[in-house]
Amino acid sequence: MSEKTELSPKMKKLIELAAELEDLGHVNALLGWDQQTNMPSGGAEERGLQMAAVGRIMHEKFTSEEVGALIADLEDEIGDLNAETDQARSVKVAKREYDKQTKVPLPLLMDTIQTTTMAHGAWEEAKSKSDFSIFKPHLEKIVDLRKQYAALFEPYDHVYDPLLDDFEPGMKTAEVKEIFNILRPQQVELLQAIAEKEPPDNSFLKQHYDEERQEIIGRYVITRFGYDWNRGRLDLAAHPFTTQFGQGDVRITTRYLKDDAGSALFSTMHEAGHAMYAQGIPRKYRRHPLSGAASLAIHESQSRLWENLVGRSKEFWTFLYPSMQMLFPQYLANVSMEDFYRGINKVQPSFIRVEADEATYNMHIMLRLEIEIGLMEGTIDVADLPEIWNAKMEDYLGITPPNDSVGVLQDVHWSGGMIGYFPTYALGNLASVQLWDKMLETHPNIPDEIAQGKFDTILGWMRENVHQYGSKYEPQEIMLKATGSKITPEPYIKYLNQKYSDIYHL
Amino acid sequence: MSEKTELSPKMKKLIELAAELEDLGHVNALLGWDQQTNMPSGGAEERGLQMAAVGRIMHEKFTSEEVGALIADLEDEIGDLNAETDQARSVKVAKREYDKQTKVPLPLLMDTIQTTTMAHGAWEEAKSKSDFSIFKPHLEKIVDLRKQYAALFEPYDHVYDPLLDDFEPGMKTAEVKEIFNILRPQQVELLQAIAEKEPPDNSFLKQHYDEERQEIIGRYVITRFGYDWNRGRLDLAAHPFTTQFGQGDVRITTRYLKDDAGSALFSTMHEAGHAMYAQGIPRKYRRHPLSGAASLAIHESQSRLWENLVGRSKEFWTFLYPSMQMLFPQYLANVSMEDFYRGINKVQPSFIRVEADEATYNMHIMLRLEIEIGLMEGTIDVADLPEIWNAKMEDYLGITPPNDSVGVLQDVHWSGGMIGYFPTYALGNLASVQLWDKMLETHPNIPDEIAQGKFDTILGWMRENVHQYGSKYEPQEIMLKATGSKITPEPYIKYLNQKYSDIYHL
Repeated sequence: MSEKTELSPKMKKLIELAAELEDLGHVNALLGWDQQTNMPSGGAEERGLQMAAVGRIMHEKFTSEEVGALIADLEDEIGDLNAETDQARSVKVAKREYDKQTKVPLPLLMDTIQTTTMAHGAWEEAKSKSDFSIFKPHLEKIVDLRKQYAALFEPYDHVYDPLLDDFEPGMKTAEVKEIFNILRPQQVELLQAIAEKEPPDNSFLKQHYDEERQEIIGRYVITRFGYDWNRGRLDLAAHPFTTQFGQGDVRITTRYLKDDAGSALFSTMHEAGHAMYAQGIPRKYRRHPLSGAASLAIHESQSRLWENLVGRSKEFWTFLYPSMQMLFPQYLANVSMEDFYRGINKVQPSFIRVEADEATYNMHIMLRLEIEIGLMEGTIDVADLPEIWNAKMEDYLGITPPNDSVGVLQDVHWSGGMIGYFPTYALGNLASVQLWDKMLETHPNIPDEIAQGKFDTILGWMRENVHQYGSKYEPQEIMLKATGSKITPEPYIKYLNQKYSDIYHL
Repeated sequence: MSEKTELSPKMKKLIELAAELEDLGHVNALLGWDQQTNMPSGGAEERGLQMAAVGRIMHEKFTSEEVGALIADLEDEIGDLNAETDQARSVKVAKREYDKQTKVPLPLLMDTIQTTTMAHGAWEEAKSKSDFSIFKPHLEKIVDLRKQYAALFEPYDHVYDPLLDDFEPGMKTAEVKEIFNILRPQQVELLQAIAEKEPPDNSFLKQHYDEERQEIIGRYVITRFGYDWNRGRLDLAAHPFTTQFGQGDVRITTRYLKDDAGSALFSTMHEAGHAMYAQGIPRKYRRHPLSGAASLAIHESQSRLWENLVGRSKEFWTFLYPSMQMLFPQYLANVSMEDFYRGINKVQPSFIRVEADEATYNMHIMLRLEIEIGLMEGTIDVADLPEIWNAKMEDYLGITPPNDSVGVLQDVHWSGGMIGYFPTYALGNLASVQLWDKMLETHPNIPDEIAQGKFDTILGWMRENVHQYGSKYEPQEIMLKATGSKITPEPYIKYLNQKYSDIYHL
């Protein structure tokens, strides 16, 4: 079937349905964005009900028998589901999602929405008071609901598979374990080698950095990257995130730490990476079954690429450092670019995942994956989480969180029911280096361009090799198309070893 | 039927339906608020589709035959629809709304939503360029749609009645005309008397007032009034407005003019008056058929009461003026409170309705009402509006707008299809004085309290006599209950005459 063929009435109907569901999904995204950026505390209860109302409507619209029949008819109509046309892929994506969602009974869905809405508030309070007991009953309920959810997909290879699959279509727990089993010893070895060396100084980063100037440089950098402000904005929120209300409105958030010059800047680059992916999905997929991203790992490959491969590179600071010195002369006038570069790349086991350096970051993910698998397998009790968390931190990073706020309570994900999400962060790290390496084969002068503040070759390559597909392909298909390989740990390990050998003279 | 009676299954169903529709209505309100406060321009098109999607779902849910049958059954069940129980009134309100909405064909509704979404952008552009031709085709379409809408309600006494009734339930065009016919000559007479006197100086208001300090005093004043920040927030928007996403989240907006100390302050008081009404609806009416306000005129009575009867009174400035002088010493240190009071109450025919003083404000409304009636009757063409507007401005206020941006294009309402809305502003002015006079009968020391910065007696009286009813009663019922009289112009005329006799020594 040629892409040029006039769409059949049934195909048109599928696209109309996707458009309506996308509109409603974006409505719910706005409810969530506002909840985190603007909503006064008094609005929480009704907001939860509003999100539940929209969620229920979406679920009912999509899981009707009529939609099932429509998809079945389209499968017949199109014939070969492996065909790579947009139409065939649209039906495939819709069927995949339909089969999943129709398995979920409405009461379980509503219970999950209501539970996670309440849990979010409890998590916030627990975190601010560093009191896990406030969050514990909510997390127990969430784990129970996630078990009920996974059970709907029996038989499975592993109880964690159905959760992982929601964020990383087609990925299996066994594959992730295999990747992590290769990654873990090599990252540990690297960390041990680094630990034996004199660490670079980064005390100049830990001064009182003016928030307004932090914002100036953050906005400047992502403007240079290619973030489209006509289709986005930057706001403050406790937890940096990217969200979208259409192709024309992809927003990011950040927060400025007074005593850390890097935190907001790198997190802003990170979120801009996500946002530029969303802004780069082609117009033809707007309000369409293929309008989404391929997966969270692919999303994370984009954010980590801009944050780390660009943003923490020596070439990037060759370009940006004069501006940084101009804005913060009191701390940086006498710091050389080389020392600054080493400072922002200091490897230091730390409590907070989102502030971890590249060498330790994946360790935070492995810890979470083991805990999530344990919770789902039933070998770990929620009640024991703080203790288990701290023991694993000591084991992997040699440090013990002084309290649960910077330990087991640090991440928002579990309060939102998002178990199965964390591995995608590590997978995204791996994918980012694979894409980077491939891009450099064709464009070896990209490092020079970065040093001149030129980023359009990078964005163009990502548009061409990743963004343009929307959700047409599964993540591993994208990786194969773009790099010739599925997600694999070796390039990342090589990248880390090279980078830190230089910085730490290993 | 006692209020304590256990609710019947059908009554419960009606309340559940109202709750769901309220949730969705608040979702749409958030989409609208964000559109005006935050949304990047690129989001406009998809936002319109999102609002249309939610609007359509609400319409379909409410206008189903099942809901019609439910309401009919409840009418039988309850019997006397005039009974004053919450249940009987809930059914009455639901039936009223059902009868209206089922008259509207879905295509007309969707056409109206889409047209007004596009018209809003066109109006913004037309206003910024002061080019009526950009807005003209949109307004023509809107007038046509409004005519189609009115025709659904034939037979009517007047083609404008169905539109007016949407904003002011039960009110007829003939009643409004009668009130305005009494009001007009007396306001004209007052304006003529004022015009013969030496105007007070208000040049000290037209200086460069620091925006941050304008915000400080605005927030302070409405906090003293009793605006609940746990259930609200204040943001910037081009057009000040109040919106709510539940009883727990009632937001207001304002904008700061650099060269006018009064504009933002009075508009903030005004919006806080609206918001405190919404915050004052009893908890029992949350997500309930009676959760709304009585009408726009009753709403406006609250906003104008705080803005004018409190905020432009001598007693209020006895309390607030020292703070104002403290924040803006460069302009006010040598201005006496008495001169300041006269300055903020200077009567000066002006182009912009929202900045009009109390003596000229209603003239702006009468002008709009005549134009709207002419548009609906077909005696005025959209194409002639700029000319007609300017002629009426000259006729009523003796001034001619230099361009359409400060003339016919100044208000957002028509772009949103809101024809029939403006008269409620004038009616609200009248109602505010009626309520005020009645309140003072019981609490004659309120002026003294205001001078001491004490506002809780006022808010308490409004809670008791207006807010507590939600939408249980029609606006004229509320006025009768609270003041013993329907909306009538005499108290307002008397108030204006007394106030300006003092200020202008008439």
